[in-house]
Amino acid sequence: FYYLNAGDIRPLHRRFDRFSHKGTYGKVLMIGGSFGKMGAVILGCKAALRCGSGLVSAFVPACGVVPIQSSVPEAMVETSMGSEFISLPLPDLGRFTAIGIGPGMGVGKVTREFFEAFLNSYRGPAVIDADGINLLSGDPGLFSLLEGKVLTPHLIEFERLVGKCSNHLVRLEKAKEFAVNFGCILVLKGANSVISLPDGRQLVNSTGTKYMATGGSGDVLTGMICSFLGQGYSPEDATTCAVFHHGLAGELAAMSRWRGTIASDIVESIPQTFVKLGIS
Amino acid sequence: FYYLNAGDIRPLHRRFDRFSHKGTYGKVLMIGGSFGKMGAVILGCKAALRCGSGLVSAFVPACGVVPIQSSVPEAMVETSMGSEFISLPLPDLGRFTAIGIGPGMGVGKVTREFFEAFLNSYRGPAVIDADGINLLSGDPGLFSLLEGKVLTPHLIEFERLVGKCSNHLVRLEKAKEFAVNFGCILVLKGANSVISLPDGRQLVNSTGTKYMATGGSGDVLTGMICSFLGQGYSPEDATTCAVFHHGLAGELAAMSRWRGTIASDIVESIPQTFVKLGIS
Amino acid sequence: FYYLNAGDIRPLHRRFDRFSHKGTYGKVLMIGGSFGKMGAVILGCKAALRCGSGLVSAFVPACGVVPIQSSVPEAMVETSMGSEFISLPLPDLGRFTAIGIGPGMGVGKVTREFFEAFLNSYRGPAVIDADGINLLSGDPGLFSLLEGKVLTPHLIEFERLVGKCSNHLVRLEKAKEFAVNFGCILVLKGANSVISLPDGRQLVNSTGTKYMATGGSGDVLTGMICSFLGQGYSPEDATTCAVFHHGLAGELAAMSRWRGTIASDIVESIPQTFVKLGIS
Amino acid sequence: FYYLNAGDIRPLHRRFDRFSHKGTYGKVLMIGGSFGKMGAVILGCKAALRCGSGLVSAFVPACGVVPIQSSVPEAMVETSMGSEFISLPLPDLGRFTAIGIGPGMGVGKVTREFFEAFLNSYRGPAVIDADGINLLSGDPGLFSLLEGKVLTPHLIEFERLVGKCSNHLVRLEKAKEFAVNFGCILVLKGANSVISLPDGRQLVNSTGTKYMATGGSGDVLTGMICSFLGQGYSPEDATTCAVFHHGLAGELAAMSRWRGTIASDIVESIPQTFVKLGIS
Repeated sequence: FYYLNAGDIRPLHRRFDRFSHKGTYGKVLMIGGSFGKMGAVILGCKAALRCGSGLVSAFVPACGVVPIQSSVPEAMVETSMGSEFISLPLPDLGRFTAIGIGPGMGVGKVTREFFEAFLNSYRGPAVIDADGINLLSGDPGLFSLLEGKVLTPHLIEFERLVGKCSNHLVRLEKAKEFAVNFGCILVLKGANSVISLPDGRQLVNSTGTKYMATGGSGDVLTGMICSFLGQGYSPEDATTCAVFHHGLAGELAAMSRWRGTIASDIVESIPQTFVKLGIS
Repeated sequence: FYYLNAGDIRPLHRRFDRFSHKGTYGKVLMIGGSFGKMGAVILGCKAALRCGSGLVSAFVPACGVVPIQSSVPEAMVETSMGSEFISLPLPDLGRFTAIGIGPGMGVGKVTREFFEAFLNSYRGPAVIDADGINLLSGDPGLFSLLEGKVLTPHLIEFERLVGKCSNHLVRLEKAKEFAVNFGCILVLKGANSVISLPDGRQLVNSTGTKYMATGGSGDVLTGMICSFLGQGYSPEDATTCAVFHHGLAGELAAMSRWRGTIASDIVESIPQTFVKLGIS
Repeated sequence: FYYLNAGDIRPLHRRFDRFSHKGTYGKVLMIGGSFGKMGAVILGCKAALRCGSGLVSAFVPACGVVPIQSSVPEAMVETSMGSEFISLPLPDLGRFTAIGIGPGMGVGKVTREFFEAFLNSYRGPAVIDADGINLLSGDPGLFSLLEGKVLTPHLIEFERLVGKCSNHLVRLEKAKEFAVNFGCILVLKGANSVISLPDGRQLVNSTGTKYMATGGSGDVLTGMICSFLGQGYSPEDATTCAVFHHGLAGELAAMSRWRGTIASDIVESIPQTFVKLGIS
Repeated sequence: FYYLNAGDIRPLHRRFDRFSHKGTYGKVLMIGGSFGKMGAVILGCKAALRCGSGLVSAFVPACGVVPIQSSVPEAMVETSMGSEFISLPLPDLGRFTAIGIGPGMGVGKVTREFFEAFLNSYRGPAVIDADGINLLSGDPGLFSLLEGKVLTPHLIEFERLVGKCSNHLVRLEKAKEFAVNFGCILVLKGANSVISLPDGRQLVNSTGTKYMATGGSGDVLTGMICSFLGQGYSPEDATTCAVFHHGLAGELAAMSRWRGTIASDIVESIPQTFVKLGIS
């Protein structure tokens, strides 16, 4: 186990120069949402923008267009055929430099088909969260498609994926195995999130606060990882930076709000983390 | 009558530790809203989130989905069959650790049927407000189902419930009787809100300001009580903490706004109350 | 001509005490809006809330519900039969302590019928603005129904009402005549707004800034007058207070924004005016 | 090449006096948007308002009404026949003092027809951006209609317009030629935006930051140019002022946000630029 500190994070960040343009900063797609659960995508898109993504699009069922357009004017929205749930066909995924998939998506049949087709056809950088992980849990045959992907389960989602664990050490051991076996990065979210890497290393995050245990907090992390992936970071660097900045943003948000902290506060605190860590 | 002060509040709060997750902080449901009256649910959901609830869902008629999703991305929304009013069937209520019901709901026939079914089948922690109280007023046969519940009438709603009162002392006496007879907690909202407990005690709140007499202020209180109930507080502790923090949030909001204070300001001041009272 | 100053305003305000409740602060209705012009009602409702109204409702065509509910959770919304324009029948107007009518309403046939019916049947305190004034201009037969009402034309609307004026002194003279002849209060909005009273007096406002010449600024004033009318002020006091506070709010908003000031900034500065003028 | 500095900007601005009214400050129209791409219009409208426009309207497909009305209450919305894309007929364009066209509009057949009709019939001040430029690229026969117009391509849009360029000097040379040949103003957006004027001069902007390379930043500039055009500035002055203030607003926004800066932050920083530059 290696404990991450601020000094580890700085060298991982890409530097951008004066002649960058919004294309340099990547074009990411957040896939998720279903009827009544569009907020997850809103939070993810905002978080991706706040981490510096040049262009952010959402792919949602049609019922999500108005809430997203009313809430995030910087994002573009594309819609699935299904009005309430994401369903096939896949959109053209080759246009994006990274994809985040899962938040608020549901686990119904048409969405499962969509998710499987996504895994079978998309080879680029991606982060899989929430219902994406729940869909994986039901279908271990898909695990072989996870190479190079980032997964971000919380404790319950993780145990759905690998089975019940008797204690946290067992959980961490299984997380390591999962990452090694399937060549993916697995972030086990919790009090100290642990990043398991395909080479067997495990990094323990040192930022964060109990006040981040609030609905939408995980969707913010998904947007952040996706943003760094889309900016050309390696999956390891993108995940490490996102997890560390996410925890730090939560600390900053909670400083004046304690248990009154909500996910939107975490998003709004992301910019300060770049200043605080000196990431120009 | 006992006057509440800050020293009474601190020991009532649950403390959460570093290893809490959003499940620890409860999963609450706000049931309410009707065509043109969805703001009450928006305010209630925001207030619940600001008190620390881990997961907040709304149950509303379909017309409420877009406004809520556009306003509170942290909340999830489930819809009733009725497009403009809440109607049967009940959703699965067993998934929630507390429920708030009533704000903006209306008192029509289909909503009355829903409300009666709710009272007959839900045995968990709940707060009943606004049109929930108005529906009770029309049907005293339901009073026997109020055991363990929290009611939050303002003066007019209270007199609908128990009949006209010649003065405030009579009102307070009837409030005590109601709480004792039906085993519920009754918050009589006003200049100094009074909490009547099932054992006959009555607690008088010492926080608040005249500037809180504004539309939506009561919906905020409902969300706050629901939040603490959902975090595992006893009905007495949840109500006492919520009433005190609500008044304090109103004081903080009004400090720089006087009569220009609106309900959203009260919501946004809730986090400060935890800091001010030292409730980590 | 009498120049208003802060010392004139203070004694006009009603004082509310600790035992006030939201009913004490009035229940107002903003009637207006049409397809693509709902923002006027949003601004009016927000302004009314920020002046201390206890309960604020909007009456709009159905297309206005989602934008208002998404923007002002403190307001309730009722809808006209027409989906894009306000049309008959009238809602029950007796429930309100004051009504504002006109902003964004349009001047089409069905709305004209609604407006005429409103003037013929409503005897309570009201402020008429924007398209309400334009509708009046086309039908001088309605002028006799204006007794006790408040009209708030800008220069162009005013000349539609009374005919072209060769200079501002002529305009002011015609404003005086109009107020005296029809027993109404007429606010001629401009660099220094002038309030013409039914007894022939004319009050010149001393607050305001050129930076308030921005879309929606007038809608904010309408909401403010309506709010004070609904709180039980006489039409003269309500108008005088609203005009003065509106100008002061604009000054405060513009202090750090200069020509970048927008109507929403004026609304958000209203609370400060109560503090600054010491209106508890 | 001439490098713009603050001293150049001040004398270009119009001064408005106490007796201005919202008509003095112009009435502008932002034409753009399509299904899922309404945010561009929201940002443009907000930017126009923040630069001092008196009245701002949007012309969008019907699907854009709710997001715009929910996000910018100060703006009015008119809709095209097409529900998802802008299509003929043209609205009455003569009511506006300037028009911005292009952001988020798409390049489909019906929108192309609309755009061509616009160019053929509208002779007033206008700024053409984004998909407006993309539509031009496909149809050089339209270039002769660009006299007096302002075009704001980023590097990729520019090369679509004039063909691939081997380096930035070639690009600048082609930009000069384009402006001279077609009598228009062309802003080549980038690290240092360059304004090419019809008389062959080229002005290099000195404000801005790499943190402005974020989705929607260009839409903000379009709204700003349109605002100054509508306030009666010459196309050269409007463009020069807008480009300089846009960069400065970006610097101010980024000061505390670094790469966390988003387009909405730039909009909200516009008012400060007037204060900072002393443009009363």
